[in-house]
Amino acid sequence: MRIGIFGTGMVGETIASKLIALGHDVSMGSRTANNEKAAAWANKAGARALHGTFADAAASAEILFNCTHGEAALEVLGAAGAANLHGKVLVDVSNPLDFSKGAPPTLFVGNDDSLGERIQRAFPGVRVVKTLNTVNCLVMVDPARVPGEHTMFLCGNDAAAKSAVSELLKTFGWRDLIDLGDITNARATEALLPIWIRLWGVLKTGDFNLKVVR
Amino acid sequence: MRIGIFGTGMVGETIASKLIALGHDVSMGSRTANNEKAAAWANKAGARALHGTFADAAASAEILFNCTHGEAALEVLGAAGAANLHGKVLVDVSNPLDFSKGAPPTLFVGNDDSLGERIQRAFPGVRVVKTLNTVNCLVMVDPARVPGEHTMFLCGNDAAAKSAVSELLKTFGWRDLIDLGDITNARATEALLPIWIRLWGVLKTGDFNLKVVR
Repeated sequence: MRIGIFGTGMVGETIASKLIALGHDVSMGSRTANNEKAAAWANKAGARALHGTFADAAASAEILFNCTHGEAALEVLGAAGAANLHGKVLVDVSNPLDFSKGAPPTLFVGNDDSLGERIQRAFPGVRVVKTLNTVNCLVMVDPARVPGEHTMFLCGNDAAAKSAVSELLKTFGWRDLIDLGDITNARATEALLPIWIRLWGVLKTGDFNLKVVR
Repeated sequence: MRIGIFGTGMVGETIASKLIALGHDVSMGSRTANNEKAAAWANKAGARALHGTFADAAASAEILFNCTHGEAALEVLGAAGAANLHGKVLVDVSNPLDFSKGAPPTLFVGNDDSLGERIQRAFPGVRVVKTLNTVNCLVMVDPARVPGEHTMFLCGNDAAAKSAVSELLKTFGWRDLIDLGDITNARATEALLPIWIRLWGVLKTGDFNLKVVR
């Protein structure tokens, strides 16, 4: 598949490299066409790896990953352009983390809204699927880093989009997927960040995840 | 031990009955000294079961359980009286659920505060331990209802109080306890309610819990 990645940070690079390893064509988008990190990644990642602006990454892709900081997400999607996003599946990996009041971060959405919903409202033509935002990026693309079975949640308004993303997640190694329903359920998965951050502090590693035992 | 229970609802009755079964002396407190539900419970539960006002339940107890609705918690503790609460361990099982906007409920605290902290701030002489609020009350007192190992979080400012509560939780059957730290960590465990409520909807049962896989 042709996949576009928004964001050149550790999350974006980790997902982009995994997708390359799985045989996909991946374009890493950033604010400028000649971002050094994106160019270095594409150069290292081989012939299937491209880089360009957010609009470039969006225009050619079938599936998009939003790997930006939560605060930047709407601006980045605006830069990508609603026309380039229209009809595309957007995997929203971002979280509404607010570091302005120190550590641990709080969330900049209340519990009657979510960043996933804000993105869906701002870009109604995009098929947003919220997932992967509840684990460290290394676990996102290699769930076997955490021993045994554990759970990945997903939600979104478009059943076909969720199905396509589920298939992709299975190729990452995910087995226990729980579809929570429509995009309003992003409130619940984004609200897992406070416990995730504290567990990271207690466990001193990002190699953990939640399992819904039932 | 002598244990006081605030609340005559399903949560309070379930915990009170479990404590009686474990051989403790339990007093169920309510707004009035002659609450019908409390009297019926005490009558059924035997010689070790008492009932009375919130103040009665608090005065004689070593450990207290707050099993009220979140919205009522501070008022109930006020009725119990700061002097009766002073120095006691208070196990806060309540959640800041706001049903006023319909289902699913939202939380009436922002993610930079928690009900556990509000209680600790309002009653600084009480040793608040936040725990059990992340599972159905039947699972609280019988974790084996959910197969395999799964996790119970606790947090609070007083190490001795957390130790006493941990021992009590072990007698309920809990094995995987994670101490998150001080009472501010109640923000994280209360924020698990949105996913709990949605999982309950998806799984059609309250017999589930989260396991921190690591």
